[in-house]
Amino acid sequence: MKYFQEWQARAMTPEGPSAWFPACVPGNVQYDYARMMGWGDINFGDNVEAFRAAEDYAWEYRASLRFGEEEGKRYFLVLEGVDYRFDVFLDGEKIISHEGMFSRVEADVTGRRGGELVVRVHPHPKRADAPEGTRDQADQSVKPPVCYGWDWHPRMLVSGLWRDAWVESRDAGYIRRCEAFYTLSEDCSRADIRFETECDEPVEITLFDPDGNVAGRGARIALDHPRLWWCNGQGEPALYRYTARTASHETAGTVGLRRIRLVMNEGAWKEPSSFPKGRSSAPMQIELNGRRVFAKGSNWVNPDIFGGLVDEARYEALLTLARDAHMNLLRCWGGSGVNKPAFYDVCDKLGIMVWVEFPLACNNYRGTEHYLSVLEQEAAAIIRDLRSHASVALWCGGNELFNSWSGMTDQSLPLRLINKLCYELDRDRPFIMTSPISGMGHGGYVFYDGDSGLDVFQVFQRAHCTAYTEFGVPGMSDADILKEFIPENALFPIARDGVWRLHHAFGAWGEERWLCLDVLARYAPGELDSLEAVAGMSQWLQCEGYKAAFEEARRQAPYCAMALNWCYCEPWKTAVNNSLIAYPARPKRAYEAVKAALRPVMASARIPRFDWRAGDRFSAEIWLLNDSPCEAREPVSVSIELDGKEYFLLDWDSGVVPPGENRIGPTVNWILPDASASRFTLRLRASGEASSEYTLCYRDAKGAGSGRWMNM
Amino acid sequence: MKYFQEWQARAMTPEGPSAWFPACVPGNVQYDYARMMGWGDINFGDNVEAFRAAEDYAWEYRASLRFGEEEGKRYFLVLEGVDYRFDVFLDGEKIISHEGMFSRVEADVTGRRGGELVVRVHPHPKRADAPEGTRDQADQSVKPPVCYGWDWHPRMLVSGLWRDAWVESRDAGYIRRCEAFYTLSEDCSRADIRFETECDEPVEITLFDPDGNVAGRGARIALDHPRLWWCNGQGEPALYRYTARTASHETAGTVGLRRIRLVMNEGAWKEPSSFPKGRSSAPMQIELNGRRVFAKGSNWVNPDIFGGLVDEARYEALLTLARDAHMNLLRCWGGSGVNKPAFYDVCDKLGIMVWVEFPLACNNYRGTEHYLSVLEQEAAAIIRDLRSHASVALWCGGNELFNSWSGMTDQSLPLRLINKLCYELDRDRPFIMTSPISGMGHGGYVFYDGDSGLDVFQVFQRAHCTAYTEFGVPGMSDADILKEFIPENALFPIARDGVWRLHHAFGAWGEERWLCLDVLARYAPGELDSLEAVAGMSQWLQCEGYKAAFEEARRQAPYCAMALNWCYCEPWKTAVNNSLIAYPARPKRAYEAVKAALRPVMASARIPRFDWRAGDRFSAEIWLLNDSPCEAREPVSVSIELDGKEYFLLDWDSGVVPPGENRIGPTVNWILPDASASRFTLRLRASGEASSEYTLCYRDAKGAGSGRWMNM
Repeated sequence: MKYFQEWQARAMTPEGPSAWFPACVPGNVQYDYARMMGWGDINFGDNVEAFRAAEDYAWEYRASLRFGEEEGKRYFLVLEGVDYRFDVFLDGEKIISHEGMFSRVEADVTGRRGGELVVRVHPHPKRADAPEGTRDQADQSVKPPVCYGWDWHPRMLVSGLWRDAWVESRDAGYIRRCEAFYTLSEDCSRADIRFETECDEPVEITLFDPDGNVAGRGARIALDHPRLWWCNGQGEPALYRYTARTASHETAGTVGLRRIRLVMNEGAWKEPSSFPKGRSSAPMQIELNGRRVFAKGSNWVNPDIFGGLVDEARYEALLTLARDAHMNLLRCWGGSGVNKPAFYDVCDKLGIMVWVEFPLACNNYRGTEHYLSVLEQEAAAIIRDLRSHASVALWCGGNELFNSWSGMTDQSLPLRLINKLCYELDRDRPFIMTSPISGMGHGGYVFYDGDSGLDVFQVFQRAHCTAYTEFGVPGMSDADILKEFIPENALFPIARDGVWRLHHAFGAWGEERWLCLDVLARYAPGELDSLEAVAGMSQWLQCEGYKAAFEEARRQAPYCAMALNWCYCEPWKTAVNNSLIAYPARPKRAYEAVKAALRPVMASARIPRFDWRAGDRFSAEIWLLNDSPCEAREPVSVSIELDGKEYFLLDWDSGVVPPGENRIGPTVNWILPDASASRFTLRLRASGEASSEYTLCYRDAKGAGSGRWMNM
Repeated sequence: MKYFQEWQARAMTPEGPSAWFPACVPGNVQYDYARMMGWGDINFGDNVEAFRAAEDYAWEYRASLRFGEEEGKRYFLVLEGVDYRFDVFLDGEKIISHEGMFSRVEADVTGRRGGELVVRVHPHPKRADAPEGTRDQADQSVKPPVCYGWDWHPRMLVSGLWRDAWVESRDAGYIRRCEAFYTLSEDCSRADIRFETECDEPVEITLFDPDGNVAGRGARIALDHPRLWWCNGQGEPALYRYTARTASHETAGTVGLRRIRLVMNEGAWKEPSSFPKGRSSAPMQIELNGRRVFAKGSNWVNPDIFGGLVDEARYEALLTLARDAHMNLLRCWGGSGVNKPAFYDVCDKLGIMVWVEFPLACNNYRGTEHYLSVLEQEAAAIIRDLRSHASVALWCGGNELFNSWSGMTDQSLPLRLINKLCYELDRDRPFIMTSPISGMGHGGYVFYDGDSGLDVFQVFQRAHCTAYTEFGVPGMSDADILKEFIPENALFPIARDGVWRLHHAFGAWGEERWLCLDVLARYAPGELDSLEAVAGMSQWLQCEGYKAAFEEARRQAPYCAMALNWCYCEPWKTAVNNSLIAYPARPKRAYEAVKAALRPVMASARIPRFDWRAGDRFSAEIWLLNDSPCEAREPVSVSIELDGKEYFLLDWDSGVVPPGENRIGPTVNWILPDASASRFTLRLRASGEASSEYTLCYRDAKGAGSGRWMNM
């Protein structure tokens, strides 16, 4: 039903319009333009800089309407999403003028067959008095701010027909909307499903159970003992399917029956305890179908600079990796905006809960009349589009808005407006104004923090949060990836400028981020004298750092109920990033480490710090973690390997650990002997998949710098 | 326009209806019934207990409609507020059925002259499965929960026509609504006023300036350099007045032009400082017309058990005392509900800002469909009724809802609903979900806290809050008040049961509250062997405790921006209470102490603790506090009086202190000599009204119990 000739586009440059060039729809016009201009792969070298020249262009798309008209039908042009402000002309007549990329627009084009359609996309919104080149420019528009530049994302403003466009025919049997709502009884043993339809003719609805058998018919269907939708690791993500039919039209959808609540974290009502007394923390414990579930996952960011090009296959590849890493929650960070519908379809199917943020991040979005009106339209469209997804677990107003670098507060009208819209349109889904709110924590983002003098092991063991919803440890991309985008002569030695800096090794967030050469040097026993040496060191710290943080967050359950690292994927090839998956979908070593740290049942060691020297009393608490819905029991054998020798320390039988509970075991204590090594390994051997190991920094009695460091 | 005969009422007892008795409208039917029954003053002895028998009665009011009908007019019955669930019958026909005491109801009664009106008031709402006699019973109704019993309020459920009732005539010229809205330019130099009217004929509007001169006419009036409404202590509470006229109807109102915002407390963006990082505190700094104002005041509770009987004169007496005590903000605590309109009129006039709470307090108001629908109706009525008042400074969802004893959270639908309604109906007035929220503090409520071992001086000097919005120190009522309601034979010795307990001396909140004999004994040098001795001791602690807390909160400015003690007034005669004003409007000694502690310009001493002994190094920081809009400068002379001797310690010249700023001066240090005293006085002598003094506990080198204590 596309009814279009090929789309073309052109740039409206200061010197006049460019030639027309082929344009992908859905896509981003900057990608098409660069292809025409021969700018090469944006990932390579400093190619991204070429795009800057085109930043403030307006753009035009064109296509001819080609559709065969039938008597009695009307024909509608549908633009699912155009980024960001645009006018639509048909044969020179302006038929649509719109601001906002998340709301679809439509126009009746009956009788306009052969018409010449032009979509004129205006230049990117930039607040007039905001400093050029900063993300502040994004603070009066409902456009994902990340493309204005971030510490892991180049400034690369994209726009255009990022979602699909088509012409469709409609008659009296056209189903404008069919949406399922349901209530579950308190014990989830009964579901009452109600379909709302908008259609001028009666609509026939059939509901199929997850096996494809008819489960009911009609606008109201009651189910006894329905199959519930469970998140990954807790059960089957059961999806019912429905069809809605008239004589001339059919539509379909899915219903995942589940109840998600944010309930108070265990123990959090006891705080604060003394006068003058503040409030207790905000609840961040997910309760799914009456069961408290520890939320494990990551922060999802736009998986491509050119978001318009991302398709279901890309989502599926990335989300399958998340599923396989035992993740059950992805926070879709607001700075990257909202994904295409296919993302949520895949999450529904894989049982991955989604925390959806509105496109506000790290700015003070002031409540001007204009901003509030566009936000109201866009937020309402987002809520309506996504509310039927079982996977959508909570709404969040945006990222870090209640912190100094944003400057928004509980009083900010945009956040009060979003609360109002979520209440009106999707009342029963949890809502938080921003992350973090009271009790939660963001950061740190390095393995070792020079300000506090603490490594990531220490930082998290001292922390006491209801939810860790962003924490990062940077790690370098593999050398073979680096070689794909760094010109050979720039690969080594690593320069602080040029491609390395452009791809976030330096100056991304403080001079040393994200490569953190100072931190690498702190733990390196010798010179980091090759690309592989630097990469190995960086990846070692990323792996051990993420394990330390994730496992500590899990040990802090049930008070702590969430652990989400920063970040999951990345939008282009980076030299160094906190991500687990390199662009476009290649797992880093840290992915495997995190996957290990998220196994439902696993032996875990609480190790006070990363850095040890001969003569220290090494100690570690031994735990069995179990966030599965089943009992667990493991015999755990603890040993240390140092300098090729294995020292047996302890056997511990966890006993039966109930579903969703952890058990603390003994603490091992051991004086580290003298050895000629730069690392040692703590091993917890258990049955099956529950074994764990930790590779830690070892120094001789005199400390660092002994030159004994080896490639990992 | 009352058009009523005298109202009568009767009780629907289990044995059948009582006789009809005269009823006050506005009033509370329980008061009228008790008068008929001869139960005596509810304040006296244990009279309140007699009322319990009638707790679950239904009630009926009746009156005849008496109005002369004119051709072409319609006649409307108006009930401004009936507490709580009721039906209205006219000649036996049910014409209204309603739940909710804050929304007015109306009925067209044209042609029903002489009709017999009956208002049947249903028994008090009580959640079915809530324990009898507890305030939990109130958690599914929008009725002030305080009447279900509180630590300073007897259980005494009232209901009935608590607001006025009348019949009025309406024709085409009837002005159903005339409401002023305005915007102020950022620098407040220009006001654009817009009147919204609902009327079938054109309405002629005239605006008068605060001196009574015509300032403009018409539905839109622009004012250059308008006279702004300022709160007490900051300027004139200027009120413009308007009239709205048609040929047959006239109405009038006031407009106070001001802009109130909650902005971030100074320094609060710097917190938190380390990773993992939570949110910064919620802003609680009032900015009035662009000026940051330290909010000083108290917690207003219902000034009478029989709230229906409170009239403008009572409000005016109490509010004038608040004005005279330099208060600029009263928190109308949600447990007591919302006052009659006259309260806000007087506050407008006196420049007292009002923090209005919706009637939720210390309960978990679950978001059932029924509760949400009544709450929506009632909250919308409250907002519409009050939003035109200049004095109304902020909305708050209710009291202590995010604490364990309530159990509500950011997810609670009733609070999200209230946020939504405030946004829709009164977007530009600050809103907080509850008190305390992040950064704020409630409590303590005693002079000395046995759990922490700290007195109120210490507690507040260790605290670090953006706003202290409830803190209390109990003090006994004067002996002459006690003698009014405690039978002579029960006055002394003080018994732990009977009248003393009923009137909150014991068992109100823990066994020792509110008399706190344990605390009195701690500081009493001898036996408390008379009523006057106990009262004097209790009042001494209340005075010095309140001074310590209020002045410390002011010294913590600008980080701290609010100090409101618990509580201002009281609903009946209490033996002991944290209140400043005894029932009905008699200032306690603590009122004078607080009045002194709230002087705009004053010398103040930061004294580390209350309790000193010979040989201690006494120390105190000397400050000049200035929250006035003017510069201040004071010479301060510091001395101590001990045992009748005055010791000079220090002279300090504050220098010029800018408007709204404090200045810290020197710390005095002095070794306390041996003396035969039980107290000593620190004096800060300054010019005019700025002098201060503090009377502190003194013990000889061996400590307490020396029997040297004297009546105060």
